Amino acid sequence: MSLTHMNELGYAKMVSVEEKKDTLRIARAIGEIVVSAETFERVKTGGIKKGDVLTVAQVAGIIGAKRTSDIIPMCHPLNLTGVDLEFNMIDETNTIQITAIAKVIGKTGVEMEALTAVTVAALTIYDMCKAIDKEMVIQNIYLAEKTGGKSGHYLRTKEN
Amino acid sequence: MSLTHMNELGYAKMVSVEEKKDTLRIARAIGEIVVSAETFERVKTGGIKKGDVLTVAQVAGIIGAKRTSDIIPMCHPLNLTGVDLEFNMIDETNTIQITAIAKVIGKTGVEMEALTAVTVAALTIYDMCKAIDKEMVIQNIYLAEKTGGKSGHYLRTKEN
Amino acid sequence: MSLTHMNELGYAKMVSVEEKKDTLRIARAIGEIVVSAETFERVKTGGIKKGDVLTVAQVAGIIGAKRTSDIIPMCHPLNLTGVDLEFNMIDETNTIQITAIAKVIGKTGVEMEALTAVTVAALTIYDMCKAIDKEMVIQNIYLAEKTGGKSGHYLRTKEN
Amino acid sequence: MSLTHMNELGYAKMVSVEEKKDTLRIARAIGEIVVSAETFERVKTGGIKKGDVLTVAQVAGIIGAKRTSDIIPMCHPLNLTGVDLEFNMIDETNTIQITAIAKVIGKTGVEMEALTAVTVAALTIYDMCKAIDKEMVIQNIYLAEKTGGKSGHYLRTKEN
Amino acid sequence: MSLTHMNELGYAKMVSVEEKKDTLRIARAIGEIVVSAETFERVKTGGIKKGDVLTVAQVAGIIGAKRTSDIIPMCHPLNLTGVDLEFNMIDETNTIQITAIAKVIGKTGVEMEALTAVTVAALTIYDMCKAIDKEMVIQNIYLAEKTGGKSGHYLRTKEN
Amino acid sequence: MSLTHMNELGYAKMVSVEEKKDTLRIARAIGEIVVSAETFERVKTGGIKKGDVLTVAQVAGIIGAKRTSDIIPMCHPLNLTGVDLEFNMIDETNTIQITAIAKVIGKTGVEMEALTAVTVAALTIYDMCKAIDKEMVIQNIYLAEKTGGKSGHYLRTKEN
Repeated sequence: MSLTHMNELGYAKMVSVEEKKDTLRIARAIGEIVVSAETFERVKTGGIKKGDVLTVAQVAGIIGAKRTSDIIPMCHPLNLTGVDLEFNMIDETNTIQITAIAKVIGKTGVEMEALTAVTVAALTIYDMCKAIDKEMVIQNIYLAEKTGGKSGHYLRTKEN
Repeated sequence: MSLTHMNELGYAKMVSVEEKKDTLRIARAIGEIVVSAETFERVKTGGIKKGDVLTVAQVAGIIGAKRTSDIIPMCHPLNLTGVDLEFNMIDETNTIQITAIAKVIGKTGVEMEALTAVTVAALTIYDMCKAIDKEMVIQNIYLAEKTGGKSGHYLRTKEN
Repeated sequence: MSLTHMNELGYAKMVSVEEKKDTLRIARAIGEIVVSAETFERVKTGGIKKGDVLTVAQVAGIIGAKRTSDIIPMCHPLNLTGVDLEFNMIDETNTIQITAIAKVIGKTGVEMEALTAVTVAALTIYDMCKAIDKEMVIQNIYLAEKTGGKSGHYLRTKEN
Repeated sequence: MSLTHMNELGYAKMVSVEEKKDTLRIARAIGEIVVSAETFERVKTGGIKKGDVLTVAQVAGIIGAKRTSDIIPMCHPLNLTGVDLEFNMIDETNTIQITAIAKVIGKTGVEMEALTAVTVAALTIYDMCKAIDKEMVIQNIYLAEKTGGKSGHYLRTKEN
Repeated sequence: MSLTHMNELGYAKMVSVEEKKDTLRIARAIGEIVVSAETFERVKTGGIKKGDVLTVAQVAGIIGAKRTSDIIPMCHPLNLTGVDLEFNMIDETNTIQITAIAKVIGKTGVEMEALTAVTVAALTIYDMCKAIDKEMVIQNIYLAEKTGGKSGHYLRTKEN
Repeated sequence: MSLTHMNELGYAKMVSVEEKKDTLRIARAIGEIVVSAETFERVKTGGIKKGDVLTVAQVAGIIGAKRTSDIIPMCHPLNLTGVDLEFNMIDETNTIQITAIAKVIGKTGVEMEALTAVTVAALTIYDMCKAIDKEMVIQNIYLAEKTGGKSGHYLRTKEN
């Protein structure tokens, strides 16, 4: 099996997907940002105020999903039919876990859209907290699950 | 000290930086993507061919740096004066480590631009290898160093 | 009935439309910009020259319609199948009335695309005339009519 | 005095501003969206929840300000140094009044950026409420004040 | 037969294509850039190194194809299903010939996408070589072939 | 002298320009599109109507100039201070010659912006006329003149 993004001359290309079927495709990606105890508390309590960090990150993640084919060179442009994000505050480790779900009816999967949503949300949290915390780390970004298309259902089993 | 991105009503805003000085500001960010042994080998040997994965990721990282203020809501638009990326193949762990440097002469730092460059490069590697590897993980994205501006030189010391 | 753009946690999301049918959807939006008598005359007589204000506004409105999902966070990306604008010079009140029609075959309506076309056209007229007129007002932007989708035909009856 | 956006042949151009001075330029624009009593109540009470309509509109307005030169053809690209929005709930008329302030140190003013912020915020409120209200009207969008540049201080006096 | 991009008032519009059929549409465009002997040699030998000029041009061409409806005002947004480029080094004339193929299943052709891919690739080569060569010329950009849609198969016969 | 866009590892980078001076930089680029006699006549006579082909091309060229760093990977983002285009109808050869001038006060030249303006204008003419003419050719795109920066004044002498 070869890298599908390479043409015969070894150059990158946008893979042809004309012959794939239009099916409902859903992808769920996960990622996290580890912050200081103080930052964690700020984000958490800010969560009950208007305009808090997580709301901006939520909006950013959705916008990010829509910009995926603009910033990932070989990604196909897609008409996403739904995007949602969820934040999970893990107190023990001052970690904000981000889950994003992207959906489309199309010829190619939306893993990159879900992963981009998670990543842009994490970067947005970083941006809004960086004045008080320079030691944040974005980590553990991976595809958790996908359905639709020829390859069928994929559920990540490896612990991360 | 308060979260600078919040106005008095608790809403997010783009922080005013008119009174900051125009200085040379440089940021270096690091991140990595862990892949399977097979994928690692492919990317590595592809490295001697035209159009290899890392070259596309390099271009994507530079484009990503330029799109930072488009995808991170509170980021100031900046006229970046230089962006470069470097890939380090770590054989022991099948890890591709990505370093990005962003530069500007301006009123605000370029941490987000360097972090976005790293992230978009990692997502691009993910995109180009996902047909043969669904277990990849993007991790350890952080600010390694920054100079310029009032806060001066920052060098991350904490081991990651 | 709840706000469809909110998920269960109260966060904004891009609504899922996978189960909606692909139908022809058309929306017509209206808006206007009131200018000074002098500006009105300029725009009107400029209308017979190459490169006049309204032609640029027309192009801007079409481009604006295509950028709708880029600037309205929860808007679905759509492949518009047609966009047109029309300008109506109302002499009595020095008002330029703008009508935009947007069309798509898709799972979600194009109200926002028509409204964005009108708005961007009005802002473009403002931009091109602001050197001679600072008192312009953009007003009365609303959805005039829409067809397609489950909710069927909507025609605004309330006088505006 | 001629329309500055026209070249000698009558075509539109992006006006040359090389000889203008870099000064601090600030613009404040105002606009409003009139909604039904029910929608008004929803937006208002949603205002204490995470992810409410106004927070998304706030983020959209800031992003919109940054995209101004992308959507208004003759607008100069600018490195905005600050953008903020404020929402004022006017109970008597079920009106949400939006104020946006944009700032830059540059050769040209930021009226269009402030006006675009207001407009995009209004369109975003429209988008998020349109499932329950089709009769909303966006109105009274105008420049309230500007400072900086050769023309100096402008404060709109005409009642609107 | 009239110019389809004009409405009855003589203004430009985005042509309505709702009634066209979704068929596979492919377009192939060709163009070239003539460079100095020294530049030609550099690009050619650089072709075996990582990150060479042609690889960046290849990525740029693909990105350019995806941005077509962003930069060509009356172009319909399309979900391209495949894009590829090929470079042909013509020694006799120090010419780099660029061929781009774009594909979509849709209601309107992809000539503009293929032409934009060629053009952006040529501009990228220009950009990367301009420090050593100011006399380059981009030329002979045309549609070589198209299939799909009502007009059927078109193959350019005129020698260029 | 080496290709400035390559880092030591042979990868492409965005060249560092921090140490260059901010000077007024102007570039003039030229290009042309050759059309059929019938198309030429249409464009020419359309030139007196509202919304004609050349006006749309003019707007597109200006927008294109502003998008240059979005579509040319290694281009620095710049705050253009002026862009203008001019069309010259050459009857003898059914050729529309396009000249674009771009200006900036910055650390790097605007050749690519002027060239992109010409190219996007040509592609837009192509797009609007392609329903009646498939044999058009875009050709002779080159840098005619540039001033500013260390390299000083450049005026192309070679006949094209």
